[in-house]
Parts: sequence; C-alpha cells; structure tokens
Amino acid sequence: MISFGSDNHSGVHPDILEVFHLANKGYAVGYGEDRITIDAIGQLQDLFGGACDVWLMMTGTGANMVALQSVVASFHSIICADYAHINVDECGAVQKFTQARLESVKTTDGKLTPNLIEPLMTGRGDEHRSQKKVVSISQSTEYGTAYSLKELQELSDFAHQYDMLLHVDGARLANAAAYLDVTLEQMTKDVGVDMVSFGGTKNGMMFGEAVISFRPELTKNLIYYRKQAAQLFSKMRYIAAQYTVYMNNDLWLTNARQANAMARYLAERLSDLERAKVVSPVQSNAVFAIIPAETVSKLQDRYHFYVWDETSMVVRLMCSFDTQEEYVDRFIKDLSSFLY
Amino acid sequence: MISFGSDNHSGVHPDILEVFHLANKGYAVGYGEDRITIDAIGQLQDLFGGACDVWLMMTGTGANMVALQSVVASFHSIICADYAHINVDECGAVQKFTQARLESVKTTDGKLTPNLIEPLMTGRGDEHRSQKKVVSISQSTEYGTAYSLKELQELSDFAHQYDMLLHVDGARLANAAAYLDVTLEQMTKDVGVDMVSFGGTKNGMMFGEAVISFRPELTKNLIYYRKQAAQLFSKMRYIAAQYTVYMNNDLWLTNARQANAMARYLAERLSDLERAKVVSPVQSNAVFAIIPAETVSKLQDRYHFYVWDETSMVVRLMCSFDTQEEYVDRFIKDLSSFLY
Amino acid sequence: MISFGSDNHSGVHPDILEVFHLANKGYAVGYGEDRITIDAIGQLQDLFGGACDVWLMMTGTGANMVALQSVVASFHSIICADYAHINVDECGAVQKFTQARLESVKTTDGKLTPNLIEPLMTGRGDEHRSQKKVVSISQSTEYGTAYSLKELQELSDFAHQYDMLLHVDGARLANAAAYLDVTLEQMTKDVGVDMVSFGGTKNGMMFGEAVISFRPELTKNLIYYRKQAAQLFSKMRYIAAQYTVYMNNDLWLTNARQANAMARYLAERLSDLERAKVVSPVQSNAVFAIIPAETVSKLQDRYHFYVWDETSMVVRLMCSFDTQEEYVDRFIKDLSSFLY
Amino acid sequence: MISFGSDNHSGVHPDILEVFHLANKGYAVGYGEDRITIDAIGQLQDLFGGACDVWLMMTGTGANMVALQSVVASFHSIICADYAHINVDECGAVQKFTQARLESVKTTDGKLTPNLIEPLMTGRGDEHRSQKKVVSISQSTEYGTAYSLKELQELSDFAHQYDMLLHVDGARLANAAAYLDVTLEQMTKDVGVDMVSFGGTKNGMMFGEAVISFRPELTKNLIYYRKQAAQLFSKMRYIAAQYTVYMNNDLWLTNARQANAMARYLAERLSDLERAKVVSPVQSNAVFAIIPAETVSKLQDRYHFYVWDETSMVVRLMCSFDTQEEYVDRFIKDLSSFLY
Repeated sequence: MISFGSDNHSGVHPDILEVFHLANKGYAVGYGEDRITIDAIGQLQDLFGGACDVWLMMTGTGANMVALQSVVASFHSIICADYAHINVDECGAVQKFTQARLESVKTTDGKLTPNLIEPLMTGRGDEHRSQKKVVSISQSTEYGTAYSLKELQELSDFAHQYDMLLHVDGARLANAAAYLDVTLEQMTKDVGVDMVSFGGTKNGMMFGEAVISFRPELTKNLIYYRKQAAQLFSKMRYIAAQYTVYMNNDLWLTNARQANAMARYLAERLSDLERAKVVSPVQSNAVFAIIPAETVSKLQDRYHFYVWDETSMVVRLMCSFDTQEEYVDRFIKDLSSFLY
Repeated sequence: MISFGSDNHSGVHPDILEVFHLANKGYAVGYGEDRITIDAIGQLQDLFGGACDVWLMMTGTGANMVALQSVVASFHSIICADYAHINVDECGAVQKFTQARLESVKTTDGKLTPNLIEPLMTGRGDEHRSQKKVVSISQSTEYGTAYSLKELQELSDFAHQYDMLLHVDGARLANAAAYLDVTLEQMTKDVGVDMVSFGGTKNGMMFGEAVISFRPELTKNLIYYRKQAAQLFSKMRYIAAQYTVYMNNDLWLTNARQANAMARYLAERLSDLERAKVVSPVQSNAVFAIIPAETVSKLQDRYHFYVWDETSMVVRLMCSFDTQEEYVDRFIKDLSSFLY
Repeated sequence: MISFGSDNHSGVHPDILEVFHLANKGYAVGYGEDRITIDAIGQLQDLFGGACDVWLMMTGTGANMVALQSVVASFHSIICADYAHINVDECGAVQKFTQARLESVKTTDGKLTPNLIEPLMTGRGDEHRSQKKVVSISQSTEYGTAYSLKELQELSDFAHQYDMLLHVDGARLANAAAYLDVTLEQMTKDVGVDMVSFGGTKNGMMFGEAVISFRPELTKNLIYYRKQAAQLFSKMRYIAAQYTVYMNNDLWLTNARQANAMARYLAERLSDLERAKVVSPVQSNAVFAIIPAETVSKLQDRYHFYVWDETSMVVRLMCSFDTQEEYVDRFIKDLSSFLY
Repeated sequence: MISFGSDNHSGVHPDILEVFHLANKGYAVGYGEDRITIDAIGQLQDLFGGACDVWLMMTGTGANMVALQSVVASFHSIICADYAHINVDECGAVQKFTQARLESVKTTDGKLTPNLIEPLMTGRGDEHRSQKKVVSISQSTEYGTAYSLKELQELSDFAHQYDMLLHVDGARLANAAAYLDVTLEQMTKDVGVDMVSFGGTKNGMMFGEAVISFRPELTKNLIYYRKQAAQLFSKMRYIAAQYTVYMNNDLWLTNARQANAMARYLAERLSDLERAKVVSPVQSNAVFAIIPAETVSKLQDRYHFYVWDETSMVVRLMCSFDTQEEYVDRFIKDLSSFLY
C-alpha cells in the first residue's frame, strides 16, 4: 500500500543499504572511536562549515533531548512553536530529560518570529520564573513550511540579544535546504544557528541523526548526556557509514529534492480539483489539504495518510525520497473518482 | 585488527544483513504497527513461553531504562551488583530516567544472592528511606558468570517475598542460555523472572533489544516510557526483521554457542601457560585472566582488549559469534612468544 | 509601610504566635508522630468531612509539588490555567519534581471550564502524547475570582469522565469559602474534588499548608514524596499547633472574611473615582484595577503593591487578615490627591 | 517524656521564640527582600568570614538539595559516606532533585578521607561513567564524630586537586565548632570548604537552615533552584529573625556547648557502668553505646531514644541544647536499676 502517511513509512535508499556490507568487514572499536565514524564526523563538520562539533544519535527525539540538555538547566525554559515535535510528539521526552520547561507559542504556520516570542520575554532574573534559554525551531516545520535565511537570521539575532540560543530540530533539514536552494552551512552557521540536528531517518537512511554544535565551548558535556540518554550507539560504524553515503554524492539533497518535487506536484494536482484545497504553503515534502470528508475513508482503504484536523478535515500528505509521480497520479485519479 | 575488546566490536551476522533487503520492500507503517514487527513480537512471545508482553528498543541501556522505569517510582530503589552495567557503565542513565536510587552490593563474581541482599532489607515503610522495589541482575553477568536456574529461582523467591520484582538485564542472555543449555523460557518465566531484556546487538545483530514482561498488568504504561526515552524506533521493521532471522533458525543460540566455545577454548589455552591465570569461571563469552604486565601493551599492538584491573593486571578477553579458533591460537602464540 | 502587595506581606495573627509558647513545652517526637500533630490532623479531617487523608507541608509550592506527584507519572500531563501559580510562579517546581507536563489553558478570569479544556482532550492512548491525568485549579484563583460550587462540580464531573483527577491549589481556599459562604467540605469533598491544599501562610499563619486527599487509595505513597521534596518538617508540632488555633475558633474564616471585606471595600471606594476602574470581579481578597499611570510610582512611595500588567496599567491590590478600613481610606485619599 | 531520640525532639529556645513578636510588627516584603533578612544575611556573611553568598532555607534536606544542585549536572556524581544523611535519611531527595549519582563510601566512623575516596577516582572523561564533582561530608557526622581542621584541609585539597568541590552538610555545624573550639570561618572558609549549610533547627531554632557558598561565581543560579525546590520562604523575616538571635549573642555556640557537654557527661556516666560500653568517640552531641538488650524496652518506656543497630544492640543517645544534667542522671539511675 502506497503511503503518504509519513516520510518514515518509506524504506531505506538502496545505496545506503549497500554500504552496510562494506562497513561490516572486520572488527571495529565501539562507541564511535572507529575509523568509519571518525571520517564521517569530519565530513559532517565540513558540510556545516567547520568549527563545529558533531555527534551521531540513534533517533530524532534522542537528538533533540541530548542537544537541548547540553545547554539548559532545570530552571530554564525552551521556547517552541505549538506544533513543534518536541512539544507534542515526544510524550514529554525533552521536558523529562532536561527538566526544563517548554513554553509553546501559538503559530498559524508552525513558524516562530521575534514578534511572536517578544511577549514572553518577561521575568528575567526573577527567581519565581523559569529563565528563557533556548528558542527551538524545526526546519522545515511540522506544518511543511520553511524559514527563509532572513527569518533565521532575525530569530538568531533575537535569541542572542536576550542571551538565548537558537536550536534547530532538523529532522527534515534536507528538505528545507532543497527548497531554499542553499547549502546547509548557509542555512545554519551563516545565519547564527547555535545547534542543529541533521536528520537521516526521514530522508532515506535506516536510522541515525547528527547533532551539530556551532558553540563547542558550550556543549563540551554533550557526550555524557548522549550516553545518559541511551543515544550512544555501540556499533557506531553502522550509522556513520550511512552518513558517508548520504553525504558523498549529495544523496541527502537528491532525496530531499525528489520528496519536495513530489509534494509540489501533488499540491498542483490537488489544486486542479474544485473540491480540494491546499491550505498551507508547500515548502518542503508535506501537503496540507482539505478534501471532502466522505472521500477520506475510501482513500484510506488504498493509501496510508493521516487526518491532521478532524474538525476542518485537513489531511496531511507526506512525500518521501521514493515517492513517484505515478503514485501521485493514482492518488489524484482515485480522489477524483470518489468526488464525481 | 582482531578484537577481544567487546562482543560489540564484531560486525553483523551475514544472514541478518541479508534480511534488510527483504524488509526494505514497499512502505510500512511506523512505530511498530507494521506486519513484520507484529510477527516478530508474536515469535518473541512464543520463545519466552507466552503470556508476556514484548517491546523492541534501540539500545541496551535504553532497554534497561525503560523496563525499570515501568515498574518504579522515584521513592523506590533498585538493588544491583557493584559490577552491574546499570550501575557503572551507563553514566547514570537509569537513575536519571527513573529518578529511583540504585543500591549496589559488593560481589566477588558479579552475582547477587539473597544472603548478600538481606542486610539491605531494612526501612520498609519508613518515609525517610528509599523503598526497595526491584532486584536487577545481569544474565550472563558483566564478570562472565551465569546464574543457575536454582540461583535465579532463589532470587525471584526472595524478591517476591519482599514484594519486589526481579529484573534481568539480558544483553548477553543468549550466552547464559547456551552455557546452561536451557530454553529462554526455562531461564526466565519458569524461575520467576518478572522482566528481562533479550539482547541482539552483542550477539550478531546490528542493533535492537527486546524487553519482555511476564507481568503485563504491571507494565501497561511501558509504551509511554519507551517513547519518552527516545527508544521507540520509527522504522521499526528494521529491528523486527533482524529478530525474525535471529529467532527462526535459532541463530541467537548458534551465535552464543560459538562465542562461549571460543571463550572456553581461550581459557584452556591460557591455562596451559605457566605465567597466565584465568581468574573467573568461564560461563559465557568472557575470559578474565591475569597475564604478565609486560606483555599487555605488546599484545595490544596486535589485538584489541581491555585491562579490567590495573592493579592486579586482570585483562578481559571477550569472544563473539565471529571469533575463530584461529584468532585464539594466534593470540596464544603471540602471548607465548612475548613470555619466553 | 502599608502593603497591598501580597497577603504574605502580613505578619502572623497574634493568637497563632501565642500558641507557639504552649507547643514549646517539653520534648516531642519528630516528623509528625507527636500528639499535637495527631490531634491537628484529626481536626483537619473533620473539617473536610472525614474519609480523607491529611498531611502538613512547609510551603505552598511544596504542597502543590507533593500532592500532584502522588498521582502522576512522567508521561502524564496536568491541565491548568495560564495564570496558575504552578504554571508561572514556581520556577517550574511541579514540572521538575513530577516530570509531568503542564498544559496551560488561556483564560480571561483565571478559571478553567470544561469547554476550555475539551479541545485538549485528544491523543488518549497515543504513546507519542503525554496522557492527561489531572485538572489543577486554584480556589480562589490568582485573578481574585472564585469557582462556584456548580462550576466545581462540573469540572470534577468532566475530569472524572476522562479518568482524570481534580486538584485544587488552596493557598487561598479560606477566602473562597468565605466568599461563597460554604463549608470547606461543601466546597471540596461534596463537589467531587480529589485533592486540595488548605493554605495557612497567606491567611495569618507563620508557615504551613495542609494537603487533603479524598482518594486515600490513590495517595498512599505521598509520605515518601513529602520527604523526598524536603517538605517533611522535623519539628512538626509547630505547624500543627498553628492549625489547631487556625481551626478551633474558625480563625481561618474570620481572617478570610476580613481580607475579603477589605477587598470589597477597596473596590467600592475605587469605583467612586472617575479615573480608576476595577477590572475583575472581587470574589476574594484581591482587587485588580486600572489606575492612571502617573499615580503609580507616587503611590508606591507610600504603599507596597504590584503592577500586574504594564501595558494596560492594571495593578493588583491584595488585602489581608490584618488590612484595616483605615488603610484603605488612606490609600484612596492619597490616590485621589494624586489624581486631582 | 525526656528524649534522647534526636536533637529535633527539643523545643525552641525561649529567646528565639521571643524574637517572633518583634519580627511580627507591620508589613514586610516577601521572599527575603525585607530588612530583617537583609541584615541577617549580612551577619551570616560576617560570621563566615565574608566574600561568601548566603541563602536561607526551610529544611535541612532542602538545604542539601539546593546547595548540591547548584553545582552539579545529571552526569555528575557526589561522593559521600555510607552513613551520610543525604545517602540514607532523605528518601533519595538529593538524587531526585539533582539527578546526579551518589557514590557512598564505607566508613567506620562516618568520616571520609582521601584514602577512602582515592579508589573511586577512575573513569575521568569516560562518557560511560558519572563524573565525580563533589565530595559531601557532614560536620559533625551522623556518627557523632567531628573532622579536625587538618582533616578538612586534606579533604578540600584532595577534592580541588581533582577539580571537585567540598560540600559540608552542617545540620550540626555548631556542635563541631564547639567541640573543636574554633570559629565557623576557621572550620569552613579557612580550610577550603566550598559550600556549607549552617543548621538552626537541630540547635534551638524552630526552623531554618542557611546555605553559605564560598564560591559565589559557581552558585549564581542557586536562587532559582531554591524556588524550584520549594525552599524559598515567603515570610522570610521569620527565619531571618531567628538567625539574628542565634548569632547576636553566640546563642548557637552556647546551645551547642551545652548539648556537647551533656553528651560527654552521659558518656562518662555510661563508662562507669560495667555492662555498658560507649562505642564511638564523643565529639559532638551524640553518644553511641551498647547497653544490655533486656534494658532497652524498659528504658524506652521512660525515655525516647533509638536503637541504631539491632544486631549489636548499639543505641544512639542524642543530647540537645536543653538537655539537663538531671536528665542524664535520671537515665543512668534507671539504667543501673534495670541492670542490677
């Protein structure tokens, strides 16, 4: 069954599957001291412009927990969007692990702005209040939108002005880079991002996320938190090898472009239908659209996808590196047939 | 370079690597609701005698954190051996995640007994004291020893008599089963174990651990803790598929037998040498031996292994599913040549 | 300097100060096993209608932390109003101690209703979401309003329907009871409240809060959390003795009535002034009013009080058990003189 | 009934009770910004030699939690003696609040030494191990012993050499100072102590503990943790006023001397009895003695005290500021009569 349910419903890119055989030769020291990992870390550092520290993690939630823990204490708070994965999709993992408070801000498109955050900036130095320490955003967002370089710069300037840090949950960082047509360095280091994760799982890897810190002086204890969060992989070479393939031939970009292109194509085709309506800008690999309620369960018999909002019958349709035009065509054809 | 450093220095068993290609076909729902996972869970339940709940985790530390969290509150304590992985090798992960206290007991061979625990059993109902809730053991232990069925039964009886639970860290459960020549069911459910993990990573899998609860009524909230601990894998099918291969042809047992056999062989060969001494019973895949201090660094130029105790110059030599007789022979030959 | 800053700016009621001398005779067992405490607990149980468990705490924040911890796990969430003390005035204490998530709801008057909470009631049984477990309200609220018995009953019905509990932060419970002219039993047990704190500190005691559980079967481990939260007082008799005086002659009610009467009087006098405006119903001992910005600092030279909202220049004026009509008159006279 | 059960079974010194009436005049700003508190803090700073920061807390457990939290992260460990209050008497409060690991060391007299700690000093920089950060001792200890200035200096030198801090739980600091006949400054600041608490509750105050940091640059966030631990008293003047009396006339020292003198006297009188044996040096206000098992319950009918060790029938007899020679005489007389 074809899935528009999530980009993690897709399998693993064949090139990545292949590299496991290479990585499988002989013994390797555990926990990241092996040659494959050391090389991959070096390549990741280059990809993000150098002068940064990089660590590999098992899962996206783990990458967020560990990155944020490395820069907050329990009396701090982390500002995020209402839709943020750390706010609603991780069963409180970040709060449990860091003990810090999440302060979520209502957004219309999943994106924070200085104007939206400004009203929260009270109580500095007041011992009765959690002290704001991090602005955490997702790029691309859970609502399929992407921050422009300018928006990122404004957010990091805002954060730094208040002695806060800007953290980016980059589970879909590749999709944003593909959309903006910029390098990862331009989209992170160059616009003042302090920490970012660079996800692999949702974009063709089997598992593995990288956390990058552009403030190595602040994150020197991250290694302990990684172990304490059970995110330190013993057979690290198998994540590292995936990243090697992911990077060497810009596979991350190729995959993201395909996913984005399919989302755009799907949105266009939906727009052709009178009774369907795309409700959010398509700036990555997600399409949010209203479709007639009576077609949903019929479509779900043939395709996997989620209803995002029961009331307004907004559905979320995710594309992935292996989504094919033909799948979209078939989906539209079926939807059309249910409509008329 | 040949490694006796750890069983996680080994690669992945070829059959397990192969199954990824099969698992990679088409889309699959995430987070464990896919067909491959549902089947693997069923097989795991059968393997452990049924009437149990099973969950898959990313890492061994994660499996311990989540299993223990599901049965303790912060005012509880968990009794474990001084050598226990949860006590010394996880950077405090279990304590951080569960907030409960670890009470470690000094052991000579890594094994707890009712007699060793008994002196701790004070302060029940006293609000000033952490309340004992779990006895957590490793099978096989970090010191290469294995609990007999009788010892396990005595521990579970002891625990239950005090209204405590018996948890087994089974990162090397297969090695103990192979040594005792019993089924997993006989070694866990039948002797009163309440929770156990069944490790894959150290025995030929790439990654993945299974947690089994024989007290499903006590662990119904474990799913939330798994997510909260970032141990819920989105592309779950890739752990599940590994377990399928691991189980179907008793690969777990074959692998463990090979590792154990190589440890016994290595111990025998060491015993032949006048100036080497095996210092712990070889009941799994680890050999603890004293070798002359001057040979250590020379050997470490050619083989990877760890010095366990600098003072007495005890070294730990781990064998694995892919350790070959020839590697042992070569190691002994080199050691001999350095000795004489 | 007269203070309308907070009811905790007031001193201790003379009768309560006096009882310390009585309590000070001879030795007493610590931690609450003394005769004075046992008697006070019995009286508190009677006051709340019996069939409840009662524990004494050091501080209001402590009372909230311990009560809530006794009924939640880290995967739970606690629903509260945006203005709630636990949400904004405790530097994240409840979240840190319980590890559970606070989900705050925007309110206009500090009061939650089933309608306001209903939209949050999604994700039940979804492992990715924190599971709603408690609705926590303040009675009277931080915005000076009081829930009616009917509103309380509706909230407890709503909570119970979703298998949640209703917790009441009663730092100013006395003021609400005085306003509603009902007994504490009627306002808590009879309308389905599950847990409540009965504050002393803000209403004439030196220190001390009582936590009452109407669900003793759910809160049997609270004693451990009280110790773990450093809220178990060694010389407990000195809190207990205060409660004895507080209860025996209905001092709690007399004090609350005086505070409420002074707030009403202050509100009336403010309403007489053309350029002042009371902006929230006066249902306890707080008055929220807009006064001309230019008078604030002049008044603050003579009276202590806080600006609640800089933008709209709303000030909060708290009355207390020892606020006198004469203080209000003087305040109004000064304000008038600054106005004209 | 006379109590040798604990120094917190005693009441409040009359001078301290008296000061409440003075402190009770008029309104005072809350949370420590009032004049009485500011003055008391200044006096406490002087008492400890200046160049230190001081905060007032509600309880002894709270003072430990907050002080330690201010200097550790969750990947750290705190080294303490097996008998330490933080290890066995606080239901895991420090571990829960700080998330750090306690590493307890077996002692014979409740005192740590560099030699006892040295074997733990492994694993520095190893991400699998909790990183040692604090040595926490009690002065005087829970076993009635006191560290000499030389022993303190050796411990602080040891701690600092490993980049650790020396924390002193000073619930009975006064008793140690009285025993050693040194100033508080000499016993803390001058011998390299980094943080200390100066207890009031066990030595004649009603409640209140002071935390002193000689490393203000490291503890600047302590105020947030104090609030987060519910240890920030709203009506702070009532703790501060007690400290004022406690300090002004050296009442803390007078009280401690009386308690110590009574313990010495009790020990001497016990030594006169053939069948009683004092088993620990009497260096503060505690006497540990073996008395015939058959006399214990008879004595407990008339005096409150605890059996410390059931097996060897060691009892703990605590003296306090209000213990009188006559009480000791009576106890000895009764014991004698039961013996013969």
